Amino acid sequence: MENKYVGITMGDPAGIGPEIALKSIAGYPEFQHNTIIYGSYEVLNYYHHLLKIKLPMVEIKEPKEYQTGKINVISVLPLTMQDFAIGEVSAIAGNAAYRYIEKAIHDALAEKIAIVVTAPLNKEALHKGGHNYDGHTEIFATLTKTEKYTMMLWSEKLSVVHVSTHCALREACNRVKKARVLDCIKLAEGAMQKLGIQKPRIAVAGLNPHSGEAGIFGTEEIEEVTPAIETALAEGIDVEGPVSPDTVFLKAYQGKYDIVVAMYHDQGHIPMKVLAFDSGVNVTLGLPIIRTSVDHGTAFDIAGQGIANEESMYHALSLGLKFLKTV
Amino acid sequence: MENKYVGITMGDPAGIGPEIALKSIAGYPEFQHNTIIYGSYEVLNYYHHLLKIKLPMVEIKEPKEYQTGKINVISVLPLTMQDFAIGEVSAIAGNAAYRYIEKAIHDALAEKIAIVVTAPLNKEALHKGGHNYDGHTEIFATLTKTEKYTMMLWSEKLSVVHVSTHCALREACNRVKKARVLDCIKLAEGAMQKLGIQKPRIAVAGLNPHSGEAGIFGTEEIEEVTPAIETALAEGIDVEGPVSPDTVFLKAYQGKYDIVVAMYHDQGHIPMKVLAFDSGVNVTLGLPIIRTSVDHGTAFDIAGQGIANEESMYHALSLGLKFLKTV
Repeated sequence: MENKYVGITMGDPAGIGPEIALKSIAGYPEFQHNTIIYGSYEVLNYYHHLLKIKLPMVEIKEPKEYQTGKINVISVLPLTMQDFAIGEVSAIAGNAAYRYIEKAIHDALAEKIAIVVTAPLNKEALHKGGHNYDGHTEIFATLTKTEKYTMMLWSEKLSVVHVSTHCALREACNRVKKARVLDCIKLAEGAMQKLGIQKPRIAVAGLNPHSGEAGIFGTEEIEEVTPAIETALAEGIDVEGPVSPDTVFLKAYQGKYDIVVAMYHDQGHIPMKVLAFDSGVNVTLGLPIIRTSVDHGTAFDIAGQGIANEESMYHALSLGLKFLKTV
Repeated sequence: MENKYVGITMGDPAGIGPEIALKSIAGYPEFQHNTIIYGSYEVLNYYHHLLKIKLPMVEIKEPKEYQTGKINVISVLPLTMQDFAIGEVSAIAGNAAYRYIEKAIHDALAEKIAIVVTAPLNKEALHKGGHNYDGHTEIFATLTKTEKYTMMLWSEKLSVVHVSTHCALREACNRVKKARVLDCIKLAEGAMQKLGIQKPRIAVAGLNPHSGEAGIFGTEEIEEVTPAIETALAEGIDVEGPVSPDTVFLKAYQGKYDIVVAMYHDQGHIPMKVLAFDSGVNVTLGLPIIRTSVDHGTAFDIAGQGIANEESMYHALSLGLKFLKTV
């Protein structure tokens, strides 16, 4: 890829997305060489004035027109501040948010940009706008025709991929299957390799307390998890487990493993949130394009006030740049 | 209670129990006024010499004979270093470990001692010795005829009680029932009150990701957890929830809650192990006596070498002293 650009989707225009996108480019010189906001120019212009940002903003039609040292915007669809109310759910804003993503994915698949970093959506607005997706991940999976994907939470000292995410815990137990665990091991390895670790050390957590203590507290480790690990080992992957869920994350955090395969949403989210609350980045693995994301919502309650914190967007962009080095 | 003593059970004689019991009394003056080891004098004497401990050791028959400034030992049954092999599972050592606990519970129920702090058992040895218990908790529950109890993990900044512990995750889902959740809320409140917090702020975690998002990812929150919280609130308990499992522990750690009711073993153990790995104390709540415990096993691999770390025993004893103030 000749031109390595990072596309930021602006998110729901009524939320804090436009603000944190602008702040993170204006405030950090490292993002002034390759990031492009996919959004609506008029909305961004409103916030550009509100926030008294000095860095000039420019509208471009194609990533290849990128102008270094400016805030580059691809205005996906015309939208003014009169078309929606800040902090409120609307079909117009929900549809706009979808269109920004759609265009960014389109450009990524065409290799015009290398990474997509997403600002937050409002699910209700998305649905009102006529797009019945659970969220970003499902949009990316559908538009890129991806079936095997997983959510990674990444931070400097701990990274986790999830066998399942948004389902009931009982259903999460059902989803612990050899093939899926193996897919997640491979997705974890691939992500770490893209981040520059050639032979990542991967730990697979058990599902049950103490990984089931040899079948006394559940048999998923024996029937599903261990066979997946054995297959991965036979394929040359550096993987260990099942490791007791209550110790594996500390071991990884202390440096024993590069990444942990968690069996369900909270198994991975609980240690990430307590160890890296402000710095965790959400990454969708398995897509033909790389997508990182902020780790928070639209924050309608504080939108429009100029007080939104861009820290999570900063980390999502930073990780995007890390990936950019290897694409 | 006139004489406030803390009984330390020596644990499996072939493990590190004798060593950490001695080290924690010899090394910390605060434990030289009221702690009594329930064990075997000859075994302790062996380690007393091995560790070159200067504080004299004395055998007493009853807690009331306690001698300040010495290591007081109630020798529950005669056992010499020739009767077992260090670091090996044996029926003799397993039975001895059981007898120390039995005697300490007996003395606690007779109000001769106020707190029992346990050094580690080896489950296999325990079974070989003819005592078919899962571990300490079950011994204490049985010998004190207790039905409603729970495991608390306590640390300075985060404490957690568990609706269930050592069972498969699928079974843990089944055990999330209103009556049990309510019992755990009350046990949590009682424990915090014994530690000096008159009106503890209690959070109840959900079972499912995001506490089920209003029933989309599971219904246990609606059917079981919320009704338990409502009943507790009606009884005047300061309780909130269900709080999303992936944020509740950080909120508690940051000071919003005094204790969290976790729905299953790893939900509570994962954040405790990453936030308070070296300082967490295991406490059994609901017993007529107070029991705290080290948070590790017999460590047969390093037993007898004088290198065992007494830190966890130190914390278990410290918490015992905290409880001692209010009994």
